[in-house]
Amino acid sequence: MNGKYLEDYAVGDVFGSGQITIDAERIKAFAADYDPQPFHLDDEAARRSIFGGLAASGWQTVALTMRLLVESDLRPAGGMIGGGADELRWPLPVRPGDRLQAESEVVEVRPSKSRPQQGVVRVRVTTRNQDGETVQVFIANLVVPRRPA
Amino acid sequence: MNGKYLEDYAVGDVFGSGQITIDAERIKAFAADYDPQPFHLDDEAARRSIFGGLAASGWQTVALTMRLLVESDLRPAGGMIGGGADELRWPLPVRPGDRLQAESEVVEVRPSKSRPQQGVVRVRVTTRNQDGETVQVFIANLVVPRRPA
Repeated sequence: MNGKYLEDYAVGDVFGSGQITIDAERIKAFAADYDPQPFHLDDEAARRSIFGGLAASGWQTVALTMRLLVESDLRPAGGMIGGGADELRWPLPVRPGDRLQAESEVVEVRPSKSRPQQGVVRVRVTTRNQDGETVQVFIANLVVPRRPA
Repeated sequence: MNGKYLEDYAVGDVFGSGQITIDAERIKAFAADYDPQPFHLDDEAARRSIFGGLAASGWQTVALTMRLLVESDLRPAGGMIGGGADELRWPLPVRPGDRLQAESEVVEVRPSKSRPQQGVVRVRVTTRNQDGETVQVFIANLVVPRRPA
């Protein structure tokens, strides 16, 4: 199946995703590269921190969520091009062994005024762990081409 | 120097950062793990894409920016704990060889009503390349402890 055009999305459409399990090694590797703080790098220091135990960087959670979105049925024609994101929140920490899954709901479909060949699809993305608890939510603004005439 | 408390931040305070240079190998490695799309993975495919050449995932730009912030003089007591982010935008792509630097400006300092021992510092974070062009901007909501009485 080819990618979807702006006209193929409607407010209320919901897309699921596959699952990714994260382990302590991967949490620490990401942190060493991108977010080198004790509660993401070291079990003992994490136990003494506000997190009470090793926790993934929120930026790793959003990156893993991006992978789930890229591999989901959202599939805009031309690729998942993010024009930006709004209202990103991390209500609960992601822990070693957590299995993450993302759900995307279309909340707005808007043709561009300045660029008639494209538009923006706004999607509320909710990432949950294996217990169904929400660990992250944000609004993604996807740049999506219009269907060629 | 120890970390800063809520009372140590004022609207208008500006913090610089060090610099990070990103190369094609690092762009592709991140993409393989977190954002596996042709324009982040493969030079030839990227040339034919909307980006016209290899571009970093926006999520890698924000992750690299986090590293710049962690190592900057922002230094909240207890660590850089992100309660979330707003209005994240990527006005220009990040290319292999780009040297990134982040500037943070405090835009709001707000004690928490429900948690008297902490508050939120909102910071506008602007990431620029070696030519001074803005490649990313967002508002970070940092959870910061109040100074102990």
